[in-house]
Amino acid sequence: MVMPQNLLEKSLGKKVKILLKDGRSMEGTLSGYDEYMNMVLEGTEEEGKEMKRRLGTVVLRGNNVVSISPQ
Amino acid sequence: MVMPQNLLEKSLGKKVKILLKDGRSMEGTLSGYDEYMNMVLEGTEEEGKEMKRRLGTVVLRGNNVVSISPQ
Amino acid sequence: MVMPQNLLEKSLGKKVKILLKDGRSMEGTLSGYDEYMNMVLEGTEEEGKEMKRRLGTVVLRGNNVVSISPQ
Amino acid sequence: MVMPQNLLEKSLGKKVKILLKDGRSMEGTLSGYDEYMNMVLEGTEEEGKEMKRRLGTVVLRGNNVVSISPQ
Amino acid sequence: MVMPQNLLEKSLGKKVKILLKDGRSMEGTLSGYDEYMNMVLEGTEEEGKEMKRRLGTVVLRGNNVVSISPQ
Amino acid sequence: MVMPQNLLEKSLGKKVKILLKDGRSMEGTLSGYDEYMNMVLEGTEEEGKEMKRRLGTVVLRGNNVVSISPQ
Amino acid sequence: MVMPQNLLEKSLGKKVKILLKDGRSMEGTLSGYDEYMNMVLEGTEEEGKEMKRRLGTVVLRGNNVVSISPQ
Repeated sequence: MVMPQNLLEKSLGKKVKILLKDGRSMEGTLSGYDEYMNMVLEGTEEEGKEMKRRLGTVVLRGNNVVSISPQ
Repeated sequence: MVMPQNLLEKSLGKKVKILLKDGRSMEGTLSGYDEYMNMVLEGTEEEGKEMKRRLGTVVLRGNNVVSISPQ
Repeated sequence: MVMPQNLLEKSLGKKVKILLKDGRSMEGTLSGYDEYMNMVLEGTEEEGKEMKRRLGTVVLRGNNVVSISPQ
Repeated sequence: MVMPQNLLEKSLGKKVKILLKDGRSMEGTLSGYDEYMNMVLEGTEEEGKEMKRRLGTVVLRGNNVVSISPQ
Repeated sequence: MVMPQNLLEKSLGKKVKILLKDGRSMEGTLSGYDEYMNMVLEGTEEEGKEMKRRLGTVVLRGNNVVSISPQ
Repeated sequence: MVMPQNLLEKSLGKKVKILLKDGRSMEGTLSGYDEYMNMVLEGTEEEGKEMKRRLGTVVLRGNNVVSISPQ
Repeated sequence: MVMPQNLLEKSLGKKVKILLKDGRSMEGTLSGYDEYMNMVLEGTEEEGKEMKRRLGTVVLRGNNVVSISPQ
């Protein structure tokens, strides 16, 4: 069995795509996380319906996250 | 009685369909879960109103999940 | 007094109708539940505004449930 | 002072009207409740904007409840 | 400093106006409350956008409350 | 470092502006708060899209608050 | 690994951009935070769809925050 936290650990230093509750998504390199699934991403790009913007380094709150996919 | 966690355990390695709070659904092979019903899916496909997209391996946060159906 | 958990226990093996927060409802045979009112239903049918679909066996997350009615 | 739980206790066996978060209301005889304000109602009728339907015996999840009024 | 719970205690037996998350408001005499800010109101009137209705005695769940104003 | 609770303590007796989750704002003199950021305001005025109304003394529930700005 | 709390600590005294759940964003100098990701910002500017306003010093509740980006 692959525990959700294990998959995060294996994704450290890799690109991940995060889907948020409000429909937006963020893509960046996972450089950290904690037990609440708060995450630190580097080189993050946010993508909404008709826009794309660079956010650079970002702390993401875990409670807005729907899914995390290693790219 | 079949406890919810038992059904998840029996579904490991099998296809499951997940309905999310926002109306989307995801289908993939369940490869792990934790006590918050966070789940790891492999070969995941996300399906929205008029779209379908491949997400591959995904960590799904349990608090956005409405239901889980073994296929 | 009938405690909510007692009514669930008496409904094991019987048909129940579940109303969800988003307006959908599910009907199936209750085969299990836990202390968070997560439930396992068998032979489940989901009913939305203009559709009906078979989901078979389902784990339902308790935090999306509005009400449970033994049929 | 009347504690909220005391008013529920005094309402056992009596008709109550429950307002839910989504605007619906339910009316029935209160036959039980627990510390999370989950409730058991008998002879329940649900009332929405333009409809009324009989639900019979119902377990109501406390976290969707806005108010409870003994009738 | 006036602690929020102290103001509630001083408001016992007095008229209060409660604003709810969904925009409705309720007015009545505060006859009790608990540590979750669940409250008991007597002679309650609910006021929505274009309506007013009498609810009499009411248990209000604290988690739907935005504000409480002694009148 | 200024801890959030410290800023509240320094704002006691001063005017603060509170933004709420639903877009409304309230302005009044902060006379108390607790560990959940429930607050007591005096001389409160609520401001919505096209209205302004006086609420006087108010208990505000912390879980609806987005931000607090000392004026 | 960079823990989310560590990134906040390193951002003390620096400009950060905060995205909120309701789509608004706030920009200001981070002068404090606590374990719930409540934050204190100085010289804060709030930006909505078609407006910008100065809020000065602000306590931001952590549970409305989606992301924090050091500028």
